[in-house]
Amino acid sequence: MDDIGVGLIGTGYMGKCHALAWNHVRPVFGDVPRIRLAHLCDVEAGQARQRADEFGFARSTTDWRALVNDPAVDVVSITTPNSFHAEMAIAALAAGKHIWCEKPMAPTLAESEAMAAAALASGKVAMLGYNYIQNPAIGHIRALLAAGAIGPVNHFRIEMDEDFMADAAAPFSWRSERKSGYGALDDFGVHPLSLVLTLLGKVASVFGDMAKPFATRSYAGKQRAVETFDIASAFLRLTSGITGALHMNRAAWGRKGRIFVQIFGGEGTIVFDQERMNEVQLFTRDGAESGQGFRTILTGPLHKPYDRFIVGPGHQMGFNDLKTVECRQLIGFMRGEEAFGIGFDDGLHIERCVHAIAKAARDGRWVDV
Amino acid sequence: MDDIGVGLIGTGYMGKCHALAWNHVRPVFGDVPRIRLAHLCDVEAGQARQRADEFGFARSTTDWRALVNDPAVDVVSITTPNSFHAEMAIAALAAGKHIWCEKPMAPTLAESEAMAAAALASGKVAMLGYNYIQNPAIGHIRALLAAGAIGPVNHFRIEMDEDFMADAAAPFSWRSERKSGYGALDDFGVHPLSLVLTLLGKVASVFGDMAKPFATRSYAGKQRAVETFDIASAFLRLTSGITGALHMNRAAWGRKGRIFVQIFGGEGTIVFDQERMNEVQLFTRDGAESGQGFRTILTGPLHKPYDRFIVGPGHQMGFNDLKTVECRQLIGFMRGEEAFGIGFDDGLHIERCVHAIAKAARDGRWVDV
Amino acid sequence: MDDIGVGLIGTGYMGKCHALAWNHVRPVFGDVPRIRLAHLCDVEAGQARQRADEFGFARSTTDWRALVNDPAVDVVSITTPNSFHAEMAIAALAAGKHIWCEKPMAPTLAESEAMAAAALASGKVAMLGYNYIQNPAIGHIRALLAAGAIGPVNHFRIEMDEDFMADAAAPFSWRSERKSGYGALDDFGVHPLSLVLTLLGKVASVFGDMAKPFATRSYAGKQRAVETFDIASAFLRLTSGITGALHMNRAAWGRKGRIFVQIFGGEGTIVFDQERMNEVQLFTRDGAESGQGFRTILTGPLHKPYDRFIVGPGHQMGFNDLKTVECRQLIGFMRGEEAFGIGFDDGLHIERCVHAIAKAARDGRWVDV
Amino acid sequence: MDDIGVGLIGTGYMGKCHALAWNHVRPVFGDVPRIRLAHLCDVEAGQARQRADEFGFARSTTDWRALVNDPAVDVVSITTPNSFHAEMAIAALAAGKHIWCEKPMAPTLAESEAMAAAALASGKVAMLGYNYIQNPAIGHIRALLAAGAIGPVNHFRIEMDEDFMADAAAPFSWRSERKSGYGALDDFGVHPLSLVLTLLGKVASVFGDMAKPFATRSYAGKQRAVETFDIASAFLRLTSGITGALHMNRAAWGRKGRIFVQIFGGEGTIVFDQERMNEVQLFTRDGAESGQGFRTILTGPLHKPYDRFIVGPGHQMGFNDLKTVECRQLIGFMRGEEAFGIGFDDGLHIERCVHAIAKAARDGRWVDV
Repeated sequence: MDDIGVGLIGTGYMGKCHALAWNHVRPVFGDVPRIRLAHLCDVEAGQARQRADEFGFARSTTDWRALVNDPAVDVVSITTPNSFHAEMAIAALAAGKHIWCEKPMAPTLAESEAMAAAALASGKVAMLGYNYIQNPAIGHIRALLAAGAIGPVNHFRIEMDEDFMADAAAPFSWRSERKSGYGALDDFGVHPLSLVLTLLGKVASVFGDMAKPFATRSYAGKQRAVETFDIASAFLRLTSGITGALHMNRAAWGRKGRIFVQIFGGEGTIVFDQERMNEVQLFTRDGAESGQGFRTILTGPLHKPYDRFIVGPGHQMGFNDLKTVECRQLIGFMRGEEAFGIGFDDGLHIERCVHAIAKAARDGRWVDV
Repeated sequence: MDDIGVGLIGTGYMGKCHALAWNHVRPVFGDVPRIRLAHLCDVEAGQARQRADEFGFARSTTDWRALVNDPAVDVVSITTPNSFHAEMAIAALAAGKHIWCEKPMAPTLAESEAMAAAALASGKVAMLGYNYIQNPAIGHIRALLAAGAIGPVNHFRIEMDEDFMADAAAPFSWRSERKSGYGALDDFGVHPLSLVLTLLGKVASVFGDMAKPFATRSYAGKQRAVETFDIASAFLRLTSGITGALHMNRAAWGRKGRIFVQIFGGEGTIVFDQERMNEVQLFTRDGAESGQGFRTILTGPLHKPYDRFIVGPGHQMGFNDLKTVECRQLIGFMRGEEAFGIGFDDGLHIERCVHAIAKAARDGRWVDV
Repeated sequence: MDDIGVGLIGTGYMGKCHALAWNHVRPVFGDVPRIRLAHLCDVEAGQARQRADEFGFARSTTDWRALVNDPAVDVVSITTPNSFHAEMAIAALAAGKHIWCEKPMAPTLAESEAMAAAALASGKVAMLGYNYIQNPAIGHIRALLAAGAIGPVNHFRIEMDEDFMADAAAPFSWRSERKSGYGALDDFGVHPLSLVLTLLGKVASVFGDMAKPFATRSYAGKQRAVETFDIASAFLRLTSGITGALHMNRAAWGRKGRIFVQIFGGEGTIVFDQERMNEVQLFTRDGAESGQGFRTILTGPLHKPYDRFIVGPGHQMGFNDLKTVECRQLIGFMRGEEAFGIGFDDGLHIERCVHAIAKAARDGRWVDV
Repeated sequence: MDDIGVGLIGTGYMGKCHALAWNHVRPVFGDVPRIRLAHLCDVEAGQARQRADEFGFARSTTDWRALVNDPAVDVVSITTPNSFHAEMAIAALAAGKHIWCEKPMAPTLAESEAMAAAALASGKVAMLGYNYIQNPAIGHIRALLAAGAIGPVNHFRIEMDEDFMADAAAPFSWRSERKSGYGALDDFGVHPLSLVLTLLGKVASVFGDMAKPFATRSYAGKQRAVETFDIASAFLRLTSGITGALHMNRAAWGRKGRIFVQIFGGEGTIVFDQERMNEVQLFTRDGAESGQGFRTILTGPLHKPYDRFIVGPGHQMGFNDLKTVECRQLIGFMRGEEAFGIGFDDGLHIERCVHAIAKAARDGRWVDV
């Protein structure tokens, strides 16, 4: 691979994240081919042109099919709303492109299955944008677990909370419509599930509960019934026998990006909070009992690939840096190197969990994944 | 009431707590009658004599029936293992004594019901030792909720974790025997439930899940199957419609006295951790959005009755002080004053919740309380 | 010693603290003689009577000389304003009593010297009420230092901050009058100095700086010049060669009882915050570098004498409990046991430091202690 | 300005930081000209070529004079060791280039003065790389102070601690040689001083103290006397009358990037820790006293220019992002816009403070700046 031609569809929150990652991946890592920013697509032509210019893309378009068929494009970043993922990804795979698609895969399980099937058939790299798992802090947790630092894991709890749906006075929006999905479960739940999958393993069965903090929201001068659940919880049983719980709340006042992870093992406990994403809390039984306690490990150059970003420990990586790490992994997959990330196959497991939790909540009983 | 004659049954962990509270309640509060430490009972005569001497009790005995029938005794502190509570409490109530009984009430629901019935019939004060709810920090949370500081509550999570069962190599003990109870559910669960009840209200229905971190423990040179669940979780639906979750784990390495409370409301969030029992975390939407954040309120003289213990704010009350507060409330009830605590009637609701969660876990479905 | 007859002078903040400690020391520790609360003195007769009744003292008086000469009294708790300490302590020592006197010793160095001389001449126990050093958390730090856990100490910083003088609109009070002392330096500084002395050793020379956050305060309708310094800082050089700094601020909004200690050693660092008095932060270089971090040690039964108060670790002792520990040490001294505390001799060193810092601040140069 | 031609001298820690910033500034901010990475210089030709290729620079050289005279270069990033700053900056200014030079300015005050004079004479932008002040969290603190959120400031303390010199067994290096500077004072002190200057104002007089945690270090098989001070402290008096203290320690085990700031005002207190660089702690007296406490403000889109990096609040910017913010300010200065940063003129004040503190430490007396 002499260089990598990049196409980017979408220029919103995640679109910019991808653009920043593509601009940084080579200056940060060095050991990757030159990145050619080939083609950018947005629904609005002026916006597409302007972002292409700012982000450094050579061309812009409003026709995503033109982009996925552009011979200058080797890999397509898909950052559009979820309902577009399936069609775009399948078309791009058919055109022989690698895919870097934002999570979750698609609103329905059928679409997610079609995406996974298309990826498998294509032989191309099809990776999902699960950026939180790329944090060197999470990498350190994975290493600790692999080394048995806390003994065999027996239980876990993961909470994901933000407050963008917490304002009761905020008007009814698409997020409260059933067609946007279940609510917190799919909007948030895929992140904790990506941590469960990569840190602890596959899920065997689930129970669920969902709640609406506000029954109605204002809409065109009236109150309209809210159709989605801003709060969702689940009990999980992994194939390994480990049990655990997930809690998702997008109406949790004061929480801005909390993903609070507690992993309990026979010899210790690991705690992590995404709101302090450069810290890992570890309790082990080393040394005299009178001196034991949770230690706060600040990530640094020893926690790869932090060292590619910053020389000094404790100086802190940021949210956008995680996407650059993810981009480096994507390139690794494209080059056939050993790499780490969630492909469409593993992503499908996550989608199955989401739908199983929703079913369990509806039926009030455990559901197999 | 000129003075209060006290009988104490049991001199273990909670027995000493009661003794310390009875010694301090008048010097701390001033506004209570003189306390006469009349009679102390322990199963072992020497121990009974020695503790009576140290704690300042006038007499000691090994016969608890002698104590509950002693005319010098007005109120009986019951701090024995749970399986003795029912018999002792019912006998003491029958003898016309007030009761201060450690939680939980009893191993079976039938016994708990008998205790509540006896208390009701007696017309005496029968209070349970739910000390955590007596914390001025918790009192402040109750005041915040009553004042609508976080708007209508819509969701909560409470975790209670310690690690005294976390050592896989520790031998099989009575705590792993079925006859000791369910495990973490009744051992710990009553504390979170006491917070739910007093902060948020009654429980309508529950779902549960329980797990064994270690299938067997060593016993007389062999491995013996563990019969109790050191991990328990529940989803709750309150009669008010509020939903929430409880997590209990007595095998959580590094946790020593954690009771982590998160209460989500339409206008804010309250967070509390018993391991930092003099702090309340509060998020509200006051002031400019750019300046909002969780604030750490250190308890002080404004959070009654902290002022009776310490003049300086932020100087911190301790675990034993909570029992002294509870003792003051007990005396309040005895004097017919407005007071705060969990009597046998409310305690019975907690016991019903415990057994319902166990049933839900067994049956894999929601159970009404 | 069959029992110990106690006299208490003063019933304010510290007076009540002493009373609570005397009531608890035997129930908590067991291994001490019976405590006879013999005599209580307050300037106001009604107050004296009422407190004597509440605290459990047999007699009350308004004449402290009567108390110090009462044959029923073996040890005198002196908790009056500082300006009375010298006269009372010297008289009580002359009457053959042991002394438990609140810190600081006295407003002038001459008085402090007289107190130390009287104590030495008497052969009686004369102990100062430096309660913070009695915290099991601080005891653990002392043990860590003694064991070389952080290697040879080379530097330290101690801050003590509260906010009771922070309100610019608060009227001029005795605390702003020169005759009350220097301000934060003597009001607060003695506490950090007690930690320096007991954890790290004696002070050889000092530099100081003092500041007034508010030049004037309202007084009888006008502004009156403030004469004391609510902010004080010092650089210290210990006889051991260790260097360090003290910061005292009694006008630090939001700080309620902060005593923040940082001790730097060749192999690690210790951090402590009195506002979280049951926690010790320790960094050592144990284990792989990638896993190092400050650990939070929660005090528990292994940190003596926490075990005498509470069975469960992490359940937390309170401020008043420290006075009970101190009381136990006092009794140890009285019985000729090995015990820990600051007597009038060591207290004099602290007073010398205070006056040297004030002189250094005045003269703008280093001053030997 | 159609585009900006960039020259970069140095490819170490800060060299890479600058390169990353130049690559991101346009994709992040959008509102800046196209960036032309024109010329990169490193002392070693192969390294220069490789980094130029990775970072995206068009040419490379080992001759910095060629770079500063390259007509394709509009602005020169100087990231070499401090001793080279003066010569390079003065030459580049003479060649009509703008300058972005890493701090501190130069080892001697004379050189710093020459740099400031050259900048003034040139009329070009000459900005120093004080990145910590560019943190949106620090920007929020600046806004809070300007708005009087904590009333008039009366005192402050700033600590800067890392542990890269903490290992007593580490061999003698250039950092222990006198010619590298004073030690922690100039290595670290400039950062706290940059915060003092931009948040609180100019310094009038200083006192200082410096210490060596280790007298000798191993060198070629022997012990060699350490010539620099890894620990430095200072008392400051600002021209405004505000007093404060600085503490620097580069041998503080466990501290990785701590810059702990406490600012005390008549109405509140602000606290910040660079190790949690996305959080601001604020205490104000708003609302009922019983509900007051330090609040933790998580930075987000409301704290400009966080919004240019991330849409979600609490998601966290990283260390490298600060350099991108700084780069945007540099471009602002270059375009004659209102911008924020420390130029050579203000930088000279910081250098004067450093040398004055060193003199004060040597002479044991206050020194005017």
